[in-house]
Amino acid sequence: MNDTPPTTGDRAPLVLRQDRDGVATLTLNRPQARNALSVGLMSALQAELDAIHQDPSVRVVILAGAGPAFCAGHDLKEMRADPRREAYEALFVQCSKLMLTVSRIRQPVIAKVHGIATAAGCQLVATCDLAYCADDSRFATPGVNIGLFCSTPMVALSRAVGRKAAMEMLLLGDLIGAGEAERIGLVNRAVPADRLDATVEEAAGKIAAKSPLTLAIGKEAFHRQIDLDVEEAYAYAARVMTENMLARDAAEGIDAFLQKRTPVWCGQ
Amino acid sequence: MNDTPPTTGDRAPLVLRQDRDGVATLTLNRPQARNALSVGLMSALQAELDAIHQDPSVRVVILAGAGPAFCAGHDLKEMRADPRREAYEALFVQCSKLMLTVSRIRQPVIAKVHGIATAAGCQLVATCDLAYCADDSRFATPGVNIGLFCSTPMVALSRAVGRKAAMEMLLLGDLIGAGEAERIGLVNRAVPADRLDATVEEAAGKIAAKSPLTLAIGKEAFHRQIDLDVEEAYAYAARVMTENMLARDAAEGIDAFLQKRTPVWCGQ
Amino acid sequence: MNDTPPTTGDRAPLVLRQDRDGVATLTLNRPQARNALSVGLMSALQAELDAIHQDPSVRVVILAGAGPAFCAGHDLKEMRADPRREAYEALFVQCSKLMLTVSRIRQPVIAKVHGIATAAGCQLVATCDLAYCADDSRFATPGVNIGLFCSTPMVALSRAVGRKAAMEMLLLGDLIGAGEAERIGLVNRAVPADRLDATVEEAAGKIAAKSPLTLAIGKEAFHRQIDLDVEEAYAYAARVMTENMLARDAAEGIDAFLQKRTPVWCGQ
Repeated sequence: MNDTPPTTGDRAPLVLRQDRDGVATLTLNRPQARNALSVGLMSALQAELDAIHQDPSVRVVILAGAGPAFCAGHDLKEMRADPRREAYEALFVQCSKLMLTVSRIRQPVIAKVHGIATAAGCQLVATCDLAYCADDSRFATPGVNIGLFCSTPMVALSRAVGRKAAMEMLLLGDLIGAGEAERIGLVNRAVPADRLDATVEEAAGKIAAKSPLTLAIGKEAFHRQIDLDVEEAYAYAARVMTENMLARDAAEGIDAFLQKRTPVWCGQ
Repeated sequence: MNDTPPTTGDRAPLVLRQDRDGVATLTLNRPQARNALSVGLMSALQAELDAIHQDPSVRVVILAGAGPAFCAGHDLKEMRADPRREAYEALFVQCSKLMLTVSRIRQPVIAKVHGIATAAGCQLVATCDLAYCADDSRFATPGVNIGLFCSTPMVALSRAVGRKAAMEMLLLGDLIGAGEAERIGLVNRAVPADRLDATVEEAAGKIAAKSPLTLAIGKEAFHRQIDLDVEEAYAYAARVMTENMLARDAAEGIDAFLQKRTPVWCGQ
Repeated sequence: MNDTPPTTGDRAPLVLRQDRDGVATLTLNRPQARNALSVGLMSALQAELDAIHQDPSVRVVILAGAGPAFCAGHDLKEMRADPRREAYEALFVQCSKLMLTVSRIRQPVIAKVHGIATAAGCQLVATCDLAYCADDSRFATPGVNIGLFCSTPMVALSRAVGRKAAMEMLLLGDLIGAGEAERIGLVNRAVPADRLDATVEEAAGKIAAKSPLTLAIGKEAFHRQIDLDVEEAYAYAARVMTENMLARDAAEGIDAFLQKRTPVWCGQ
């Protein structure tokens, strides 16, 4: 449990963690750099996600940004400071691993977006299981403007939204508004900025009240079945549901439903 | 041909079939259980679909629900009454086979949705080739609320709508309205309740006027090509179109079009 | 460079090309046949695209139609005039190759749609990287009405829009309006007819100002990663980004960005 408010300054941690009622909030904390994903910040976020994956007290994760922006993508100064192939390879492998980790930890991850989410920051939004944004937030994959196509962000973006919409963002490199992001499916909903916290807390609260075992089963199954053909997907999902039915939380949940009472989850 | 109206009561069939002008309407008929998909109802629906697949008089299928709801998913009481692994395995295999059958019969299948379509009922909507709903209908994959993640419904849902929208339904388990279902692509259109019958009949009537051979070719090709990579998909689809062009219905259809007359289909 | 205006008549080329400021505009030029894709027109378009792929002066391609329509699909009279299997096979193989070429040339391709885009004409729109249309344009895959299901158009359509929307177009064969085409993601945007030229020119101009190397890297990567599973896609995209970072245009672009000046691309 960590209820200390975000801190800033040279000694501040690059990612802040606050836990409350099963909800872990991870806050990217390089506000002066619009939370650009330096190697250090990515390492810190990776460590937090790995720890949360093993932490049964966490039911759901909120990913937020400190300061004026959600996340402005990679740290270009840092990238240009070490222009060796090995450094670039390590960077993109690290970033890809981080994104896959967001999809693979047991707990659902919700992006809470304000300000801008660009390049790998936009990729984070596309990668999170759910995303809500302030209606004045903006999104872009602007790498094409600086000669570096947003190829890894494209992996997440092109799986979250339609191809025409993805291509327009990738080829033009323009910022799009929150309403457009909602329309194309990049975020679940854009809400007035002063309602963003409440919107995300409401979604997180609902998820935190579910069986953590059931959430973990479902999240893993989602990502595994989506890349299978439909017949394989059904064969796999039918096995998953059988195992799920044999878990104590399913018996408890169904019995509670039939008896019109609130279920008590044991996480097994 | 069966033009008898839906019947209810203990002796009533679990699925009603009415045929008219090439349109077979299958009505789930457990209104007192909101058409929950008991083993019996699924078996009856499977038998009807298998029969229709072989029936050249049927050009298109409408799937509807008797009573206040379209379909409330699996029959939880029945599931908990036989809590053996073998029973669960058989149930989910049967349900998955049923869904694949909806996609595989020769005739297009249209869901006509009113009331609620939840869990495997929502899966049925996602699976049907087309879906129209009353504007007061609602949809959910609420398994997560009772400890049993909607993993098999997810296979259909995540292929019908965008990932963020699918995940929100699956993780929150909330009901969504008809307008939202239309917005995310779960249904083709939401219409006022008193226009639902006419809307579905209009679509079914249009389809029933097409060449049944052409419909069968196209429906099969749709589902086969969608899981291929684009190069394989084109190689396959080009073969399908060549065969289609050599069929008598294509020659007739094109000649009729060029001669500005109505085609007469022979189904070959 | 060819700045001559479109010409018509028996001797007119089947595809017109105009180049200006890195933008090549290809105009389908069979206006009297609503630009139906005869073997001759497809061959001419294939030749232009192949030439453009090798032409470093071209940064982006606009695909447009002369006369009242964008493109009405295949040439049915020509098809029925040679009803041999070999002729049909050759036709659909040629058409599929043409569509794949649109996706594979180095330069982004923008569809500028007015009037109707039907059957293989609708497929062209679905295939182009971006598409903008006049708000009075209409779209259909009407093959089902003449006994010839739009199976090859379906390959592109079902990858551009959701399954329910694709199936409705394919099974009903009806024309849909520009607003609906925008809503389902078949086009990026529908605009008033008198703003279509300016809208497309603005998008083309933005793209033409990017590094052509970066565009080529990104476009190829988009189409290669989309058919991979997510883990393979990230492994591939991380390699692409590493190579991209080592290119001179990326170094120039990032340095220019950090120095707040306009980049000068060398295309390497």
